[in-house]
Amino acid sequence: MGKADIGLVGLGTMGAALALNIAEKGHDIAVWNRTPSVTRDFHAGAGALADRIVPTETLEELVAALQPPRAIMLMVPAGAPVDQQIAALRPLLEADDLIIDAGNADFHDTERRARAAAEAGHPYLGIGVSGGEEGARHGPAIMGGGPRPAWDRVAHILTAIAADYQGTPCATWMGEGGAGHFVKTVHNGIEYADMQMIAEAYGAMRDGLGMPPAAIAEVFARWNDGPLQSYLIEISATVSAATDPATGQPMLDVILDRAGQKGTGRWTAIEAQHLAAPVPAIEAAVAARNLSARLAERQVGAGIFGAPQPLAPEALGIDQLEQALIAGKVLCYAQGFGLLAMASEAYGWDLPMAGIARVWRAGCIIRSAMLNDMAAALEDAPARNLIFAPDFSARLQTALPGLRATVATGASAGLPLPALAAGLGWFDTMRSARTTANLIQAQRDFFGAHGFERVDGGGSGQHGPWAGHGMG
Amino acid sequence: MGKADIGLVGLGTMGAALALNIAEKGHDIAVWNRTPSVTRDFHAGAGALADRIVPTETLEELVAALQPPRAIMLMVPAGAPVDQQIAALRPLLEADDLIIDAGNADFHDTERRARAAAEAGHPYLGIGVSGGEEGARHGPAIMGGGPRPAWDRVAHILTAIAADYQGTPCATWMGEGGAGHFVKTVHNGIEYADMQMIAEAYGAMRDGLGMPPAAIAEVFARWNDGPLQSYLIEISATVSAATDPATGQPMLDVILDRAGQKGTGRWTAIEAQHLAAPVPAIEAAVAARNLSARLAERQVGAGIFGAPQPLAPEALGIDQLEQALIAGKVLCYAQGFGLLAMASEAYGWDLPMAGIARVWRAGCIIRSAMLNDMAAALEDAPARNLIFAPDFSARLQTALPGLRATVATGASAGLPLPALAAGLGWFDTMRSARTTANLIQAQRDFFGAHGFERVDGGGSGQHGPWAGHGMG
Repeated sequence: MGKADIGLVGLGTMGAALALNIAEKGHDIAVWNRTPSVTRDFHAGAGALADRIVPTETLEELVAALQPPRAIMLMVPAGAPVDQQIAALRPLLEADDLIIDAGNADFHDTERRARAAAEAGHPYLGIGVSGGEEGARHGPAIMGGGPRPAWDRVAHILTAIAADYQGTPCATWMGEGGAGHFVKTVHNGIEYADMQMIAEAYGAMRDGLGMPPAAIAEVFARWNDGPLQSYLIEISATVSAATDPATGQPMLDVILDRAGQKGTGRWTAIEAQHLAAPVPAIEAAVAARNLSARLAERQVGAGIFGAPQPLAPEALGIDQLEQALIAGKVLCYAQGFGLLAMASEAYGWDLPMAGIARVWRAGCIIRSAMLNDMAAALEDAPARNLIFAPDFSARLQTALPGLRATVATGASAGLPLPALAAGLGWFDTMRSARTTANLIQAQRDFFGAHGFERVDGGGSGQHGPWAGHGMG
Repeated sequence: MGKADIGLVGLGTMGAALALNIAEKGHDIAVWNRTPSVTRDFHAGAGALADRIVPTETLEELVAALQPPRAIMLMVPAGAPVDQQIAALRPLLEADDLIIDAGNADFHDTERRARAAAEAGHPYLGIGVSGGEEGARHGPAIMGGGPRPAWDRVAHILTAIAADYQGTPCATWMGEGGAGHFVKTVHNGIEYADMQMIAEAYGAMRDGLGMPPAAIAEVFARWNDGPLQSYLIEISATVSAATDPATGQPMLDVILDRAGQKGTGRWTAIEAQHLAAPVPAIEAAVAARNLSARLAERQVGAGIFGAPQPLAPEALGIDQLEQALIAGKVLCYAQGFGLLAMASEAYGWDLPMAGIARVWRAGCIIRSAMLNDMAAALEDAPARNLIFAPDFSARLQTALPGLRATVATGASAGLPLPALAAGLGWFDTMRSARTTANLIQAQRDFFGAHGFERVDGGGSGQHGPWAGHGMG
């Protein structure tokens, strides 16, 4: 075979899966890994795909195996390893050879690397790849960022390997610089909130209604045939129905409630704070993970304050809970898209809001039926608050009573529903023509002479009759 | 007069007030401002205190006017101006001359400047000064950070000018490096949450119970004689009772509900995210400020979804609202102290938790009767979760029914109470021996093979029977 179409550095779980996916789609790929034996074993295990894969043992070999202008995809751990790999590769490449970071980078790093590459006259792409190993192997969602011409050079490969949603590939160019990795970060933040809200519905069934995992599994399975249809609801049904081979117990009952986080939810919350973008449902989900890690402290709390009271069966219906989750899902996605809109403005990306919803329809963890409708809703008014789109304001009008009943019931009984409550609080503030910030402005003017605006105009910096009587 | 005891750079509102405070306490102070006329006018306007103040027109003059080893306090805007001022001053100083940044610095900047000073062998302090102009003039709360010996050199001046709480000065050394500025940042984050919860109670009275400002003022005034006694409740009563001279309307009714933020609340939320410290009540307060700024968007929301329903008078009692605010206050302070404890651990500061509560008892915006009890509660077990202290767990047991009723009523009626709800959600999770994170761990293991721990032990990294069937 001649020169390969693309190169890939890093044959870890994700890198190996992506390489096989690329080969399977008919593209010759040259691969390299720090440890040559890993490369040899990978090639040996590639079966029928082996003859589309060129194993190389040095970076020089890798570069020589590629058709100029070259394109090399990095699948190495985020952070310093990416910088080191770029530093090792760049001197071996020609000016217009393209480096693509397909790892899970902090978009600030991608912006920095993109600037450095642009100054040196080299093309550079940062692409977010969502869907885990299985997605990488058979079709991930791909969120691209960097110079459009560089994207266009490899778009035929990336769209070929991406997930397919009814004939549309889930691979889209999001914008310059770190746009792709930023969109991937927000995807993960939304994933945190979506998972947390599902977990809260699970808690209401388990602790509030006293339902066993098998019964909860049936509810999730039923919900997956309705408006909540999504990969996360589907697997919630699967794991709720699973039995532990070792003990015969329901699997959920033997799993410790101490959740990990790789930090991308945290990144979303931090970027939102920098942009003054309110994403309380995502923040609540990150807080819930952090609290879950504090098991010993929670046990002390349970000892002092006791457990929540079970609900009277009539206190909360499964249908109300489904409506709560529908409303909560709309609200947390609206917060996520709102953050994307503010970032697009602040960083000058002109993000394709509807395109983002479309790219998430398949391949990634948060894929769901609702995302197709969100794409439609964002199509004609990308910057619009999702809850103002007629389709979704109508859904909310229908589902809000269930969300209100669920949050109210949880607050009364002591069932923690922090993400659902945060979604509702955001909504009720977002539909308040008159908030209570006038009191806060009065307080700030009283103690800090910060000034305020008046409802009857006159601009900012006006003061109350208390001027000079405060703490200054 | 001989050489001055201390120098001050920057005669803005805060700097001028601090200089007068220092002179009034019997210390000779040399002052300098970028604009000499400002210095001259300040001295001319200092009245009887003028003869303790040495106006200087150059930094050389300022340095020459000081008694070695010198101490110079910077009161210039945060950020680059501080670095520029240090760069201009340092060459004129001797090795053991002390520079004190008394502005509102990001503690990361203070850590960096402290490291640079230490490497060069110079003493450097970063101190948080709370209380606005009035506090600076007559007694602020002072949170010191940097080398202890440097603090000891100026402690007699700082304690003399600090606020006094029943004979105890509100000036304390918090730890090395940026400890003082970090504590000040968290102070401001707690201030956001405290103010937001009060604003939510105001909203429940205004929009839920249909009470006019004058009636709300009476409630705040009554609350200020009880467990909620605090500066913020006191001024809430004052501003609620105030009348607009221009229109004769209640002042609160003519103030636009668009709140500003200088960013310290945001800093607190970001630092908490970096430390994985859950502070949802503070995050909810920052989100509420951000949402308040989006007036036009909220008006669209009100047009589509309508305003909240007024409550039936019997739906929520003023006493329940007071209990809600008591519980909410305990919970947001517990979150703030929890963040401080995690920062103390992470940055090796050994923060004096009880001392922090004591320093906040007077001079600063969040001063309240409850802080004295918090100091007592943290005295014997500084790292303890505040809600586990017998005094405060007892208060919560009493006040929680009111908080539950208030949050439930707000959720049902559509009254946004995001900070109170976030406080409650944090509490109900913190007292859950068994959260719903087991489902999240099952989902993460299903789609990402992240592994989990089992309730019956065996360590982390275990997998469910679905292994290999997920998205990898």
